Order: sequence, then C-alpha cells, then structure tokens
Amino acid sequence: MSSPETDDPTGDIHPEEFRRFGHEVVDWIADYLAGVDRLPVMPDLEPGALRTALPDRAPESPESLEAVLADFREQVVPATTHWNHPSFHAYFANTASGPGILGEMLAAALNANAMVWRTSPSATELEEVVTDWVARMLGLPDDFRGVINDTASSSSLYALAAAREMRLPESWASGLAGAPPGRIYTSEEAHSSIRKAATTLGFGRDGVRAIATDDDFRMRPDALRDALEDDRAAGVRPVAVVATIGTTSTTAVDPVADIAPIAEEAGVWLHVDAAYAGPMAALPEFAAHFRGWERAHSIVVNPHKWLFTPMDCSLLYCRRPDQLRAAFSLTPEYLRTPELASGTNLMDYGVSLGRRFRALKLWFVLRRFGVDGMVSRLREHVRLTRVVQGWVEATPGWEVLAPCPFATLIFRHAPADLDEAALDRHNRALMERVNRSGVAFFSHTEVRGRIGLRFSIGNLRTTEAHLRRTWGALESAAAEG
Amino acid sequence: MSSPETDDPTGDIHPEEFRRFGHEVVDWIADYLAGVDRLPVMPDLEPGALRTALPDRAPESPESLEAVLADFREQVVPATTHWNHPSFHAYFANTASGPGILGEMLAAALNANAMVWRTSPSATELEEVVTDWVARMLGLPDDFRGVINDTASSSSLYALAAAREMRLPESWASGLAGAPPGRIYTSEEAHSSIRKAATTLGFGRDGVRAIATDDDFRMRPDALRDALEDDRAAGVRPVAVVATIGTTSTTAVDPVADIAPIAEEAGVWLHVDAAYAGPMAALPEFAAHFRGWERAHSIVVNPHKWLFTPMDCSLLYCRRPDQLRAAFSLTPEYLRTPELASGTNLMDYGVSLGRRFRALKLWFVLRRFGVDGMVSRLREHVRLTRVVQGWVEATPGWEVLAPCPFATLIFRHAPADLDEAALDRHNRALMERVNRSGVAFFSHTEVRGRIGLRFSIGNLRTTEAHLRRTWGALESAAAEG
Repeated sequence: MSSPETDDPTGDIHPEEFRRFGHEVVDWIADYLAGVDRLPVMPDLEPGALRTALPDRAPESPESLEAVLADFREQVVPATTHWNHPSFHAYFANTASGPGILGEMLAAALNANAMVWRTSPSATELEEVVTDWVARMLGLPDDFRGVINDTASSSSLYALAAAREMRLPESWASGLAGAPPGRIYTSEEAHSSIRKAATTLGFGRDGVRAIATDDDFRMRPDALRDALEDDRAAGVRPVAVVATIGTTSTTAVDPVADIAPIAEEAGVWLHVDAAYAGPMAALPEFAAHFRGWERAHSIVVNPHKWLFTPMDCSLLYCRRPDQLRAAFSLTPEYLRTPELASGTNLMDYGVSLGRRFRALKLWFVLRRFGVDGMVSRLREHVRLTRVVQGWVEATPGWEVLAPCPFATLIFRHAPADLDEAALDRHNRALMERVNRSGVAFFSHTEVRGRIGLRFSIGNLRTTEAHLRRTWGALESAAAEG
Repeated sequence: MSSPETDDPTGDIHPEEFRRFGHEVVDWIADYLAGVDRLPVMPDLEPGALRTALPDRAPESPESLEAVLADFREQVVPATTHWNHPSFHAYFANTASGPGILGEMLAAALNANAMVWRTSPSATELEEVVTDWVARMLGLPDDFRGVINDTASSSSLYALAAAREMRLPESWASGLAGAPPGRIYTSEEAHSSIRKAATTLGFGRDGVRAIATDDDFRMRPDALRDALEDDRAAGVRPVAVVATIGTTSTTAVDPVADIAPIAEEAGVWLHVDAAYAGPMAALPEFAAHFRGWERAHSIVVNPHKWLFTPMDCSLLYCRRPDQLRAAFSLTPEYLRTPELASGTNLMDYGVSLGRRFRALKLWFVLRRFGVDGMVSRLREHVRLTRVVQGWVEATPGWEVLAPCPFATLIFRHAPADLDEAALDRHNRALMERVNRSGVAFFSHTEVRGRIGLRFSIGNLRTTEAHLRRTWGALESAAAEG
C-alpha cells in the first residue's frame, strides 16, 4: 500500500499510506517529547553542512516515505536547534505543547483559509472566540478585538499602519510623498521590529525616535514628552508611541500608566508590545506591570512565546478595528461575498490574504490546560527563574546585570581580574562553549555596553534538575578561562 | 494517564497522553481524507452560529482531550469550508496532501524558528535547498535565490520594498516624506495584494497605476510604456512593474517578454506574480507562458496553491537578495551571532522575525511525488479542466467568458431571455444555490462588467466523477431559474 511505484500518479497518496506513516510520525513525536532533553540543544556544525549533504535537485521519480522519514531522522534532526528542549534558554524560551501539536495536525489536514468568513466560518469564528478568551484571561476591556497574525513583527506593523491611517489620513490616497514626515516614539530598548515596521511603512530609519530609558531600562516619560514637543515644533507629525511590557533585551517594563496620558494629549496612537510578557497579566501579583495598558489603541501578545502554542501565533488586539480595516481593506470583486455585512472577513485586518487556521491550536491549549493551568505553569517559570537568580547572586564572581521582572535573567561571569572589554570577550566565549557543548543554549545581549547572558525560562519540560545541570555547565565553562 | 486531574500542573501533558491522542488524530485525518467528499463543501449556516455556540471564556480548570476532540468533530468540522474537498473549486483550489500534512506534524513538534542560522540550521538550510529544487524544476536561472514566506501578499510586499530601496534610496534614512512620489505599474487585472503592498509601503492608493489590458485580459505593453513616460514627465518616480502569470480573476498571462525590456529601459524593478501558475513552468508545453520571466528581479510562486503543500507556503525568488536584505536588515545586538559572515539569517529578508519550518512540508511533498509526479498531477488538472470546458461549450445556454490557459475556467449560464443585469443576478443566485447545497463550492468574478463563475481545479482528489456530479448540480440550479 505504501510503495510509490504502484500509486495513482494523478492523486494524493492513499489514505491508508497516510495512516501508516501518520502513526509512525506520532510515535516519533511522542518519543521526541519524552527524550528531547537527551539531545544536544544546538548542533555543533558549520554553516552549509546539511545543505551540501543533500542533493541539489528534487528527485525525478517518487521516493518512499520510509526514505524521507529516515532522512528526516538522520539528517534534519541532527542539524536542528531544539526549541522544544528544556535547556533551551535563548531569546524567549517557549513550548510547542502536546495539545498545541495536536491542533496543528488537524489544522494542516483541514487546510482551511480564513481570508473571508465563507472560506472558513470555523476558522474565522474560532479566531474571534479564542482571542476573546485570552483578552478576558488577561483582564483586557471588552472593546479590544483580536486577530491572529504570524508574528509580533507583523502585528506591530499592522498596528502602526492603522496609526498612520489615523494620523496622516492625507496619505491614504497620495502616499507619504506630500505629507509631513511622520514619526514613531519608542524606547531605545524596544524591539527591532518597530524600526523594521517604520521603514516598511515609508517613514525611514529617522521615522523612529529612540526615547532614553531610566536606570531600569524603562522609557522615561519626561524624555518622551520632550521629544514629542521638539518634533511638533520642527514640523514632524507624531504618529504613534510604542511602549513595551517586557523588552527583548532585559524584559524591562515601560511605565504605560505614565506614557498613556502623554500619548493621549499628543493625540497619537499608543501601541503596547507585550509579545513576551503579556500572558503574565493573568497573574494578579503582576498587575502593577500592566497598569495603563488598557488605555492603548493596540496591544500585541504572542501565545507562541509564553502560552505554550507552537509557532506561529501572535495576537493583535485593537480598540479601533475599523482603523485597522481602513488601513488594509480593499476588497476586489472576486472576494466580495454576501456575508460582508454580517460576518468578519479577517483578510481586511492585515497584509496577508491567506490565513492559516491558527486559532485551533490555541483553542486546544487553552482548553486542555485551563486558565488555572496556564497560570500555575507561568508561576512555575517565574519560580524557577528566582532559583537560578539565587545561584547567580550567591556565587562569587557572577552578577545579575538587570532587574528581572519575569522569567528572563540577564547576568554574567565577572572575575575581578578582567577589565570590561575582557569581560565581554570572556562571556561571549563562555556562552559559545556552553552552546557548542549541546548541554544548554543561551543568547546574549548588550546591557549599557556590557555583554550579558540571557537566560529565559519558558519551556514546560524545564525542571530544577535541568537547571542544575546547566548551571554546572556554566560554572565549568567559566572556570576554563 | 490522560486524566487532566492527575497531571503535573507545571508541565506539558505526558508524552503517552500525546501518543494516545496523536494516534486518534491520525486515524481521524486518514478517515477525513478518505471521506471528505461526502461532507458538504461549505457549511450552510449563518455568521455567528459557531461563535454563539461556544463559551465566552476559557475554562478555569483543565478539560480532557476527549472533550476537546469531541467538540472539534461536532462543532468545528461542521462549521468548516473544506478546502481539501475534491469539489472545492473556489479561488484557487489546492491540496494539503498526505506527505505535506506529515511534514507539518513534524514541524509543529520541532517548533524550530528559522530567524537566524543558529536558531535552526536545518530549517534555514532546508529552506535554501527546497527553494533551489523548485527553481530548477521550473527552469529558473541559477542566480535566483528563494525564501519562504506565508503568502504571496507578503512576498510581493517584500519584493516591492526591495524595489523601493533600489529606486528611492534617499528614503532609506528619511522616509518618503521628502522624496518624489513613487509608483508601481500593474495591469488592471492584477491581484489586490499589489495595491495593498503599495499602500503599506507608503505610496498610497495613487501609488499603483492600473495598466489597460487587451481583449484577453493581458497587460498592454504599449499602455505600460505610455504610462511610464507620462509619469516621468510629471515628476513621478517609477518604482516597479508587476506582471502577472495567471491573474486571480481569469488567470490571464501578461506578456512578460514584451514587458521586461520596457521595465529594463525605465530602470525599474520587475516583479512577476506567478503565485498560482508558477508550477506550470515545469511543463514544457506551457513554456510560452513563461517567456521572459527569467528577466525579472523577483518572482513569487506559491506551493500552497498548486504544489500540494498545506497552507502557508509562498516562495519569493530574487536575483538581488542583497537588495531585499537592504530593505529589511537591521540586526540588533541580541540577534548578532558568530555565523553572520557565513550562514544565512533569513529574518533579514522580510518583515517577520519568527519563521516556521515551512521547508519541511515542501521537502516531503517534492520527494514523495518527485518532479515527474508533480508534472503528471498538474497535467491531469489541466485535462480535467478541458473536460469541464467541453461540457460548458457543448451545452446550450452556457458560455465561457475568458480564455483558460491553465486550470481555472470562467463561465456563466446565459439564457437568451435575460439582459446583462439579470444575467448577473441569475449567476450570483445560481452560485449561491450550489454553494448552499454543499455539493460544490465556487467563487465568482467580474469579467468586463459581467459576473462569471470561477471553476478552479487543483485538488488531488478531484476525479471526473466528482466533476460530473458538480456539473449536474450546476445544470439543476440553472434550471431552477
């Protein structure tokens, strides 16, 4: 039944061939999830190794799925950095949880495309349902409406396009060429995607003004106010303020409650990037970090970061979905459907016309874990981070480099005999040593000119035992010099 | 083992719970693929039906996967439009093939993120490998380099951002505000995504000039030349020409061989939108339609349209990847890695930082079917379309409305006693009748002011028997009045 030679060359593989290999793949995934922590987190190989090992052309004749799966196991997996590994601590550690993977399997089979309501009522409406669920879990006011995009980069781009529509309406028809220069204000610690969005939207690199931060890497409201006043006096049109709750470098929290009135007074759009830390709004003890975010025009929260949902899944909440639609809707005749008046056509809220059924995996995750389950898992990650922080603080020669409000710790090894330049080299080398060993995987960042290791905890399989092993590897690597 | 009550509330579900429900899901998918043609293609329900049937909050306590899967089968599936149904003929019919679904299952479990090389060497390099494979299959010159995006809307946006970088380099720093107005030229039949890209990039709705088409809906090179000359005289900066091989409305083919020298003479970027028809370049008998596309700066081809790959998977080919990178690269410190000089960092070629392992499903599909298998399946879709075209042409009262170069037929029922306005209403009503019946699913388009039905064949399960049944449903619906 599975021999490619005997297949009908005009159709799909036989459903029984899918069933046989589907079961094999499920067993592989179950074993992988059970044993991923025995694999090196990052492979120790040189760029090009996989590429040169593979043929440079697709096969002319069909190959068997046995052969494809064997190559997957023997060539692809050993060249993979395992984001689902409990000792993956780089960037923002995340999890493709079991329920999320099941949701993705079904989404791939349905292959639904939620561009307009009728192309998939279930994908459209489940997207409305789960974004509402998350909004309620996070305590957002009812007037926020969510859509699901691939990444926070896209979500922030779309929010800022809506801001442009609000603040430079003259550009709707004739573009930015005749309009005053527009500008977006965000902290010097903000994510690079804001600058990428500004250039994509036609504001250029000067279209972002980086606002100074305080000692804790939080945007300074007084500096924001000064920048807005300066620019207005200079003929620049302020378009949007982007505040971050959980910056990428140190997870700093901008004081949104102080920023919101300044943005309101200036009449600009306020976008809150909570792509990483957003889920923490479900924990009452973290409420202070989210004060004021309910005054934003738009908020981005990524379930693929810290809500245990496989890549990709980014929620963009907007109080003025009409403004988002104004920026993107241009329905041509072949996409006009009778439900226009009543159903939601999600393609009108962003660039992408084709839209996967991303709501399904998030629905599986939210139901299988429940709000209480999500909250206790998030709380555990914060607890584990405090454990590591305790080790760093208690061990001579190590130091924490930034406040740690959530579950991402920035620290370094700082032996007394090295100057700052040598410390940077030392910490880069120590990170590379651990990464190459495969025991754990870190990324780094620059904190006020100093190189720090970023230790992010967000994987559901991470235990204290894993962390002790990783801490041991760090201490050994540091001792090596 | 699968009772949520007994779970560790800090971790993922147990791998054995994943295994048990994974097998159940695989069996469901195999049965679904075997029997999807017994389901209504589009559900007959009103907007809001699913939404109001579901709770308005996520559950506080965990639910069992039994319950979630039961609701999936009983509530989600009946509210789904089945893109994987052999009688789905709307938009561009496609297939999530068995090998593609297996690839997606594994991609979800690995959860690799190909933003920079080290975050997933396998995802990065397999993306280079499979985009090369498709380029060779389609006969593209070796200097085209591919990246995988979610959709053609994104691919065209990125290509046009690179065009802006080439043609308005002064906007790099200061944005479009001080620059001359830029303009993009594309046929009046081009996809709406080009207009969306132009507005997103800051060129406004006037930033696209629609070029007249000939009787066969192909861009008129003389009209393009005139438009470029007019605009230059008026101080507009021509940025890009977008030619389409397979327009969305009628799948018309712009004469790229005649357009390329005009674009070259004007010094503008030439982008070819072959999102739908691109795979046909693998068939020698269709070579004439692709003449000149090798002279483009960029080309988009979507395997999720007509290469049997689950959503989403759009290939953007570029001869000047450096120009694409110039438009999007702004690597911050926390994403700088030692491989910068040697490995590819795919995040630098578009908006999205997070990037799913989309290459894996395409690799499964290309290997399991082989080039010969892909070609014979594409050829079969063209053959089936000719069969339907024969029925339309042989049946009194029906007429074909546009040339049909590939596998999407535009036609209508045109009884002699109705005027044009009545014919439009009649064909809209007849389409709604068939769609509501669940037997088949069509979309429509407007062709020179007339409403036509779009009958697209692209699903691997579509047989002549399915088509005969659908044709019968169309004839009955037409006879109803």
